[in-house]
Amino acid sequence: MDLGLTTTLTDTDFAEAREKVTAALADQGFGVLTEIDVQATLKKKLDEDMEPYTILGACNPTLAHQAIRVQPQIGMLLPCNVVVRADTSDTTGRSMIVEAMNPGLMVSVTGEAGLEPVAAQASELLGNAITALDNN
Amino acid sequence: MDLGLTTTLTDTDFAEAREKVTAALADQGFGVLTEIDVQATLKKKLDEDMEPYTILGACNPTLAHQAIRVQPQIGMLLPCNVVVRADTSDTTGRSMIVEAMNPGLMVSVTGEAGLEPVAAQASELLGNAITALDNN
Repeated sequence: MDLGLTTTLTDTDFAEAREKVTAALADQGFGVLTEIDVQATLKKKLDEDMEPYTILGACNPTLAHQAIRVQPQIGMLLPCNVVVRADTSDTTGRSMIVEAMNPGLMVSVTGEAGLEPVAAQASELLGNAITALDNN
Repeated sequence: MDLGLTTTLTDTDFAEAREKVTAALADQGFGVLTEIDVQATLKKKLDEDMEPYTILGACNPTLAHQAIRVQPQIGMLLPCNVVVRADTSDTTGRSMIVEAMNPGLMVSVTGEAGLEPVAAQASELLGNAITALDNN
């Protein structure tokens, strides 16, 4: 199973990519509840330099509620993380990788068949967001 | 593989449990970078009532940095989520379940052997935090 649903945005800067991703998620009913600026955090805590890298915690409340009702411990895998990071292999610095956690992992790691319909719907919506970014 | 490392705190209220968990994590080098009050969020977004339930995003910066250097897309599974929630099967309302995502999942779902030492260290530290809560 793939770890994530992914795409690459080209000819964009990091802030613009982050904004596009947030908008594409919102169009599919996912709000961003948390954000970790990994680049800033590791600079502050460890004085380490790295590429722009953020982790957005995306949540579709209806699906999250369904998942928790099926299996209360599923919060260990919520919200659905969406990583936006600069592609360090691209020398222009204008290529940004977007990676959304595959909701199917919720089923595969728990073995809870009752989560399948929720995971399938979440996968479809996140897939729509990725496709919209591809076509942007 | 277990989904999480877990314990139950008895004879405590939710706020106290949350505080103890945060302190136990801090003792093992994990800061709480994010928090989602799931109970409040689902009430606000869906007008649904549920038990006290929070998702803490715990991060050990050194281990997170190592993991990202081994596999940049691992951010889809970071930070390490720690759920604190009321045990609805306990009628006193003073029993709180604590569940920390098993860092070994990072290895099993990615198949990336290079993550093994980082996951092992994270598991040990989170295990220490859970043990400390057990003995508290």
